[in-house]
Amino acid sequence: MVNKKFIYADHAATSALDPEAFEAMKEFLVDNFANPSQPYSFARNAKKAIQNARKTIAECINADEDEIFFTSCGTESNNWVIKSILYQNQKKGIITSNIEHHAILETCKRIEKFKDYYSTYIQVNSNGLVNPEALKKQFNIYNDVYLTSIMYANNEYGAIQPIKELASISHQNGSLFHTDAVQAVGHVALDVKDLNVDMLSSSAHKFNGPKGIGFLYVKKGLDIPSLINGGSQEKGKRAGTENVASIVGMSTALKNNCNKLKENAQHIIELEEVFLRKLKESNLDFICNTNVNHIPGNISLSFKGISGETLMHRLDLKGIMVSTGSACDSVKNQTSHVIKALGVPEDYAYGTIRISLGKENTEDEIEEIFIAIYEIVKSLTA
Amino acid sequence: MVNKKFIYADHAATSALDPEAFEAMKEFLVDNFANPSQPYSFARNAKKAIQNARKTIAECINADEDEIFFTSCGTESNNWVIKSILYQNQKKGIITSNIEHHAILETCKRIEKFKDYYSTYIQVNSNGLVNPEALKKQFNIYNDVYLTSIMYANNEYGAIQPIKELASISHQNGSLFHTDAVQAVGHVALDVKDLNVDMLSSSAHKFNGPKGIGFLYVKKGLDIPSLINGGSQEKGKRAGTENVASIVGMSTALKNNCNKLKENAQHIIELEEVFLRKLKESNLDFICNTNVNHIPGNISLSFKGISGETLMHRLDLKGIMVSTGSACDSVKNQTSHVIKALGVPEDYAYGTIRISLGKENTEDEIEEIFIAIYEIVKSLTA
Repeated sequence: MVNKKFIYADHAATSALDPEAFEAMKEFLVDNFANPSQPYSFARNAKKAIQNARKTIAECINADEDEIFFTSCGTESNNWVIKSILYQNQKKGIITSNIEHHAILETCKRIEKFKDYYSTYIQVNSNGLVNPEALKKQFNIYNDVYLTSIMYANNEYGAIQPIKELASISHQNGSLFHTDAVQAVGHVALDVKDLNVDMLSSSAHKFNGPKGIGFLYVKKGLDIPSLINGGSQEKGKRAGTENVASIVGMSTALKNNCNKLKENAQHIIELEEVFLRKLKESNLDFICNTNVNHIPGNISLSFKGISGETLMHRLDLKGIMVSTGSACDSVKNQTSHVIKALGVPEDYAYGTIRISLGKENTEDEIEEIFIAIYEIVKSLTA
Repeated sequence: MVNKKFIYADHAATSALDPEAFEAMKEFLVDNFANPSQPYSFARNAKKAIQNARKTIAECINADEDEIFFTSCGTESNNWVIKSILYQNQKKGIITSNIEHHAILETCKRIEKFKDYYSTYIQVNSNGLVNPEALKKQFNIYNDVYLTSIMYANNEYGAIQPIKELASISHQNGSLFHTDAVQAVGHVALDVKDLNVDMLSSSAHKFNGPKGIGFLYVKKGLDIPSLINGGSQEKGKRAGTENVASIVGMSTALKNNCNKLKENAQHIIELEEVFLRKLKESNLDFICNTNVNHIPGNISLSFKGISGETLMHRLDLKGIMVSTGSACDSVKNQTSHVIKALGVPEDYAYGTIRISLGKENTEDEIEEIFIAIYEIVKSLTA
């Protein structure tokens, strides 16, 4: 058993499993273990549970249920979208941005190794936003763009991109539009019909669902080729025995989060404001990289003249879990591509941490995090 | 809650979760929910659990721990192997067989759509085995074979292929060798070093682990390109936040099954023998498609002049769960490619069911299954 006497402020990396989601999973882990593809009566509950989960998830993002495809994670969803370019022959280009998650960037790099295929990367502005004019410029240069993929909200500083406008520009130029919404689903209101995106990636463990499950929204009528071929699961679009328990856990967690979207957001924003006010009133020398409309609680801070890694480890010693950046990046120990893209001056960039608050955090915890940061940064710069 | 008053005889489709595996999972679902890629103390248990699971799994198949890569399922493992051909430029061919799972066959079909890439399919003999001479003939025809992929044991009739010999022939001809061992791992003793395979696919839910997790064994020194790019998880070979709970569940289930491999096999083989003796002593007209060394309990039967689907549904009404074939195939309702490959005469082929017994089955249940089949087939052929 884990010692609960710590403060978890790394919700952008992963989140605690919703207790109700766990209860819902238990039934399909333990009793109703049937393979849902089987036609006999024992498989009926599992099959029905998947249908219900699909419906629930669709409702949470204003999609239709046949537009939801279950995958093993957000990374798989992103790979599916990007690599689908290889399985069609008309268009060769992908437009993306320089602040995407590695699941997009590394996959684009992969694609670029194929003859004639290319990707191009929009540089974000100093607020970390993709300027719609910058996207238009890309379309002036490239005329065979298959897909534009811009993340809904960045995982290191939380900024929400002008997705609706970017999708519209893409469509006007004959490109599909995908958004990696891993940080957004279950945290901000999302309406795929209003956004008019063609595809949207999501990952359950970012919204209090289990790890190892995610989904891809694919707009009706769009027939993208599979990443994982085989059996006829997911209407033949994603093969492999359905992960029933995790699908059920994901839908339960998402439903619960979506039911309390405003309430949770308000709580987290209040904590964030308290924290940032304290920090600004202190005499610490730092830059807040989270300046615009963003995912509640996702705060990127760059402290001058210190090492973010050291700060993170010292906070850990005080029982406070924060991140230096993306968890997927964490073995690398260098200034992330995202912080570089924001143009944070080097003497600050090296001292970057990400605090990502969740609905479970309290004002007392925020006070503790502030005091700890203040003391550590003071001692490191003394 | 599910009504336990039924007989489950479809273990090749999926198996009940090992209770100890469930307990092990609980800790990482509920308490130790950290993202294992994070460098802080809260992530330590999760990271350690993954290391231990990798070691346990490696030991079960006589691999080294750095040869085990976690995936979301057997199908993903198979796709990873087959599609890796696209990411290298030297060789264009794949040799496989006509009795492989759809996860191999559909993926090969995908590959064939790429210019110059091809796959070729060895026809099994009447016992459902790939003759090593047939593989040699393929190498006489094709000289740029990247990979040979032959399943360890078929999912519909259980026959175990001469993998060691097939791997050796492949290597002599400069081809990598992969085996889809989804039906075999945790059911028969497996030694990757002795077999000398380059890659081996496995899926947890076939050996009392959870759904949605599997692994790929990749022999040390072999650097196959990723199917899922992104973060640096799994030594950069399979991106995506690690499914800690399911990884732990998989290793617990596999360890427990491997510890009782002989005991379980003996029990299941006894049941199988009782069942087949009764069936042979009856006056039913059928062919047993499981004739050779096979996965304990996997019995394919073709009854003359009836519909396998009807038999399956009637057994369901009596509370007995069996299959007509692969669960991944189950929406299609036709004679499977496997039964066709065996050359089962048409008036029998249509009446095929698969009974797959597991360690939980009892002799009383076998008696009940026999009586039920006897009565149903009698009434259908009356």
